[in-house]
Amino acid sequence: MSLVIVGTVAFDALETPFGKTDKIVGGAATYAGLAASYLYSDVKLVSVIGEDFGDDNLNIITSKGIDVEGLEIVPGGKSFFWSGRYHNDMNSRDTLVTELNVLADFDPKIPASYQDCEYLLLGNLTPAVQRATLERLTNKPKLVVLDTMNFWMDVAMDGLKEVLKKVDVLTINDAEARQLSGEYSLVKAAEKILKMGPQYLIIKKGEHGALLFGEGQIFSAPALPLADVFDPTGAGDSFAGGFIGYLAKLQSINFANMKNAIIFGSALASFCVEKFGTERLQNLTAEEIKARIQQFVALAKFEISE
Amino acid sequence: MSLVIVGTVAFDALETPFGKTDKIVGGAATYAGLAASYLYSDVKLVSVIGEDFGDDNLNIITSKGIDVEGLEIVPGGKSFFWSGRYHNDMNSRDTLVTELNVLADFDPKIPASYQDCEYLLLGNLTPAVQRATLERLTNKPKLVVLDTMNFWMDVAMDGLKEVLKKVDVLTINDAEARQLSGEYSLVKAAEKILKMGPQYLIIKKGEHGALLFGEGQIFSAPALPLADVFDPTGAGDSFAGGFIGYLAKLQSINFANMKNAIIFGSALASFCVEKFGTERLQNLTAEEIKARIQQFVALAKFEISE
Repeated sequence: MSLVIVGTVAFDALETPFGKTDKIVGGAATYAGLAASYLYSDVKLVSVIGEDFGDDNLNIITSKGIDVEGLEIVPGGKSFFWSGRYHNDMNSRDTLVTELNVLADFDPKIPASYQDCEYLLLGNLTPAVQRATLERLTNKPKLVVLDTMNFWMDVAMDGLKEVLKKVDVLTINDAEARQLSGEYSLVKAAEKILKMGPQYLIIKKGEHGALLFGEGQIFSAPALPLADVFDPTGAGDSFAGGFIGYLAKLQSINFANMKNAIIFGSALASFCVEKFGTERLQNLTAEEIKARIQQFVALAKFEISE
Repeated sequence: MSLVIVGTVAFDALETPFGKTDKIVGGAATYAGLAASYLYSDVKLVSVIGEDFGDDNLNIITSKGIDVEGLEIVPGGKSFFWSGRYHNDMNSRDTLVTELNVLADFDPKIPASYQDCEYLLLGNLTPAVQRATLERLTNKPKLVVLDTMNFWMDVAMDGLKEVLKKVDVLTINDAEARQLSGEYSLVKAAEKILKMGPQYLIIKKGEHGALLFGEGQIFSAPALPLADVFDPTGAGDSFAGGFIGYLAKLQSINFANMKNAIIFGSALASFCVEKFGTERLQNLTAEEIKARIQQFVALAKFEISE
């Protein structure tokens, strides 16, 4: 039984206060897939790239045992390319270049071998592609997690609301939760959003952690305070990949497991930002992940006896 | 053995998206004292007011058993007055009026009966007054907590750094931690600030909770997500009062107790913002506080078994 991840596989060129990169491998599905691969062995990707992507770059993904049968390679095509510059605070960035290339006509292909999908991550993509993917799966997955961003709320709100009716978990940031709901209070925003379809809502707050709403409960997850954030690119995708990868491993969905899944997602995201691009996510060890999880436990733990 | 709180006792006029008030009782020492009074019985105030303050207003403080022998009343003087308007996000505000009045010449008087002070909260005030208070205590208190703000960093940084050498705990917000240290990363900021004197640093992040640094450890405390924040005035002071009140009750200072003290401070602050001014802090019950603490426990708790 597999975890299927739909999203971009792309080239990024990044500038942060710590340096800049030429074209390196990026994309939401890449980050999410790498993160998930440390927690679950049967990860399958649906995406599209051009012929320019190259075997060495593809190897970054396949060397982690990730199935790429659903990764379409367009002959003569160019891969999606994004270039951005982060400001000093690392919380805001300017997009310098966006070349959709093969992504412009992306029509997700679901190989027959992917029809065993039990866990589905609809990575940040146009809602039409997210919806098409869902429709092309013969059986409804046990859990559907959808990640999106303000851009799709600006240009495709109706399509987004349609697909939201069919997902179990939505992950967005605090500004996006406010935009989607029209409510400033995150408690009120969550109430409204949970009526749009998802049973669970995760509000990502970057350096301030994340909130989980669902089953009438709220969980506040800490973020690990870091001395240096080299490159925030892919942190949200790594979070989503770690989150669903942990749940796929556990094969049990409830609020308590969701809380732990958020801690695992946060841990993977905390690794991601330590180096440029996917570098840090390429060579993690189980021991490193375990130690990082223990850091989160220590960070949040308190005991009040009375 | 007493908990002494130095800070303003004042009039505020407030405007929030939920309404506005005429002159009501405010001031850092008022909020901190009320919050502390629910956790520790021997709370003493040092401050200054004018003759205009009135017995009914004073009664808000004294009815909680707070000692006001150190609260100077200047004959014919007018009390400190601040008026502000909060923006829709409740995180930013404009100051409309600041009338220092009797606060301009405030010279803190320490009654002989206050010399049993073991816990001292130097509330947000000019560093010169904070320092004078410390110097006028015959015995060094067990624990000195200092609260300050960006304004004093702008106009009295040298004086602030002098008094910082003599305190155990500093509470500031994230922007202030960055200003004081010149570091954007809060981990690096904390390292620098802990070399300035305090053994513990609390970074308040409002709706995002708080971070505690000290003893080579970090604790991340959640904030309670609230459906409505009516008036944020005094939240930071209530936090500080609840924090030191809890430690005074425990009579034991270590990292584990500091963590719990932050949860109690956060709980008191979460009550404070539910109504205008000091209204909510005037009539709390022990049961309400206990239930709120349990909400914080539930909010932050997760258990990872492997």
